Amino acid sequence: MKIHLTRRYRFAASHRLHSAQFGEEENKRLYGKCNNPYGHGHNYVVEVAVSGPVDPATGMIANLTDLDSFVEREVIEPFDYTYLNEEIPEFRERVATTENICIGIFNRLREFPHAKLERVRVEETSLNSFEYTGEPVGSNS
Amino acid sequence: MKIHLTRRYRFAASHRLHSAQFGEEENKRLYGKCNNPYGHGHNYVVEVAVSGPVDPATGMIANLTDLDSFVEREVIEPFDYTYLNEEIPEFRERVATTENICIGIFNRLREFPHAKLERVRVEETSLNSFEYTGEPVGSNS
Amino acid sequence: MKIHLTRRYRFAASHRLHSAQFGEEENKRLYGKCNNPYGHGHNYVVEVAVSGPVDPATGMIANLTDLDSFVEREVIEPFDYTYLNEEIPEFRERVATTENICIGIFNRLREFPHAKLERVRVEETSLNSFEYTGEPVGSNS
Amino acid sequence: MKIHLTRRYRFAASHRLHSAQFGEEENKRLYGKCNNPYGHGHNYVVEVAVSGPVDPATGMIANLTDLDSFVEREVIEPFDYTYLNEEIPEFRERVATTENICIGIFNRLREFPHAKLERVRVEETSLNSFEYTGEPVGSNS
Amino acid sequence: MKIHLTRRYRFAASHRLHSAQFGEEENKRLYGKCNNPYGHGHNYVVEVAVSGPVDPATGMIANLTDLDSFVEREVIEPFDYTYLNEEIPEFRERVATTENICIGIFNRLREFPHAKLERVRVEETSLNSFEYTGEPVGSNS
Amino acid sequence: MKIHLTRRYRFAASHRLHSAQFGEEENKRLYGKCNNPYGHGHNYVVEVAVSGPVDPATGMIANLTDLDSFVEREVIEPFDYTYLNEEIPEFRERVATTENICIGIFNRLREFPHAKLERVRVEETSLNSFEYTGEPVGSNS
Repeated sequence: MKIHLTRRYRFAASHRLHSAQFGEEENKRLYGKCNNPYGHGHNYVVEVAVSGPVDPATGMIANLTDLDSFVEREVIEPFDYTYLNEEIPEFRERVATTENICIGIFNRLREFPHAKLERVRVEETSLNSFEYTGEPVGSNS
Repeated sequence: MKIHLTRRYRFAASHRLHSAQFGEEENKRLYGKCNNPYGHGHNYVVEVAVSGPVDPATGMIANLTDLDSFVEREVIEPFDYTYLNEEIPEFRERVATTENICIGIFNRLREFPHAKLERVRVEETSLNSFEYTGEPVGSNS
Repeated sequence: MKIHLTRRYRFAASHRLHSAQFGEEENKRLYGKCNNPYGHGHNYVVEVAVSGPVDPATGMIANLTDLDSFVEREVIEPFDYTYLNEEIPEFRERVATTENICIGIFNRLREFPHAKLERVRVEETSLNSFEYTGEPVGSNS
Repeated sequence: MKIHLTRRYRFAASHRLHSAQFGEEENKRLYGKCNNPYGHGHNYVVEVAVSGPVDPATGMIANLTDLDSFVEREVIEPFDYTYLNEEIPEFRERVATTENICIGIFNRLREFPHAKLERVRVEETSLNSFEYTGEPVGSNS
Repeated sequence: MKIHLTRRYRFAASHRLHSAQFGEEENKRLYGKCNNPYGHGHNYVVEVAVSGPVDPATGMIANLTDLDSFVEREVIEPFDYTYLNEEIPEFRERVATTENICIGIFNRLREFPHAKLERVRVEETSLNSFEYTGEPVGSNS
Repeated sequence: MKIHLTRRYRFAASHRLHSAQFGEEENKRLYGKCNNPYGHGHNYVVEVAVSGPVDPATGMIANLTDLDSFVEREVIEPFDYTYLNEEIPEFRERVATTENICIGIFNRLREFPHAKLERVRVEETSLNSFEYTGEPVGSNS
């Protein structure tokens, strides 16, 4: 029997939305107040979903302590209390939108050895969230 | 890379569950207190999920301000602070159940021009919610 | 030792803000969309706080089942799934604002026999709430 | 049109993680504090999702009162305020992990006569949840 | 300027409501399902409020890391993943009601050296909570 | 009858904890990761509580639209999407701790003309919040 386990993590960080491909005016029009040169911040919520068969001996699909230490090391420890644009390599070249944060976190967690990574969901505020399943565009599931 | 964006909106409205296809007794039996002729109300939460590829230049799948103004104009502005049965055309002929509210909202948002509408979820209370993906009965996904 | 116990209840109802002391124009100006003649509705949350000494034999200040059946009978049963303006006597003469709903509920619960009623808090939406302690204006606590 | 309805229930129970297939040391290593011989407990949240076509006459996919009384009788009544390991037959032989609780609840609800059971999600704490769709391992949806 | 700081902690535990001062029948009548001899459990939320002047040099009333390590050592570490009735000395003689849990936690935190303990609030479920301010019965604030 | 009205607002901002009165080492020791020179950010929740008598004609203590436009103009508009240390004058001289943010907001709202400001509560994360009532140290209420 295949079970999905979803675990919730949090980090606090600041970012600025600014694309190197546009001029100042276009950046302002595109991102509005999120383009503020001083940056601004959020309490991000990260939900990590993994799946796998239930081991009949342990009754678990993966040990939560393994998942926690993996996510802690790969994502929370490096991201928490930082300015994402400067301190996280992924966002030196890519705009630090929540879309890209979500993909960046998925890629850091892809190799979790004890269960299959299914989905990363990132909440930027209580009103919006972004979800990535590793799915390329044009796939049909 | 294909990302899902989910955005949360709210409106407050009243409704009455009453089907023109049944007599008074049957309506009472079927809907219980929800059939109260005076109506009653809820704070509805609407979650709108859209998907699309991340634009490499902007780092976004769609501009939240575009989605917000579309949903605001098509749904929140007309639904908020109303009596759904009388003031929203969809519910003059169809019972104003949350199932039908969910389908009605999906249909109003179908043509969002900047990303693909994937799902509308409507919470009537903190205990129940309804979800519609535009899927016809008998589909197998 | 004096303990406060707070218990949370819910009801769904509709109302319309309209004051008999003002004309149509003034009502519209004052209450905006809340003055819609068809009414609209909410999921109300009611928090009831009572206090008392901990009984050393039972370890309780009051039996939750007693509080529940009292609040159920005096407030939830009569208010749930109703149009407050027409079906609750308090709001035939007083505007059904959350302020007045809060005072009305406090007055209905004042005589709870097993602990002292301290406070009634009513949430109309997740963004606003009103609280009444039975305190007359000008008191200084 | 096919709609998903999700309904949220709660029960409070205690459990102990301990596998008959391992010795004392291995159980301690595997489950940590959850292996405490005295047990410990949680407020479990159970979300039950069912799907079906909207009946054009009633506007509903199933009557919530039917779903509530079914879930109440099959799960909440027997599980609430119990020690799962001793009082629920499923957990006499299987470790009372949330994975197995989730599968156990799904199996108890499989035969709901008024709509198709799609998914059971169980939250053990606000930080983790488990989801089961009845899907065997190796399926590809 | 005097500020209140409120910090939220969590522990999961099991308990059984049973008073040595009553017979079996009376215990069952008084506590209902909470008297189940096997016990049952909850995710408890503990809110600790302390107050003090804001230090003009640091801008803080107390260092959160000091409060966290104090509460962790005095309450969370000993209470988490336990059966309160057997493993926490306070509840060997006193019924493990949330009222008494609240007082027990307040007493364990009274001596926090860096700010004045104002209040302990314990949520047993999302529907009820208990609050203790150290106030003896008959006080008048 | 005196009623308290509490209204919830949100803003997203970044800050850095750093006190001009200490050297670099002491700042690091005192504030830990919050001293990161790049800053970091939060979704702040602000709860504003005002009190007053219920106007018998309107049934309200103050018009929510008046409170909203006042708080919007004095706090949300200037604070939202900013780096507090640089862009808000109060935090050029005072450390941008949540204690000082809470006091700063209270002072900006003190003169609300339609009801008495009772309390400002600021949540920095879902785990901690700070509350200020305008009370000087040593007061005894």
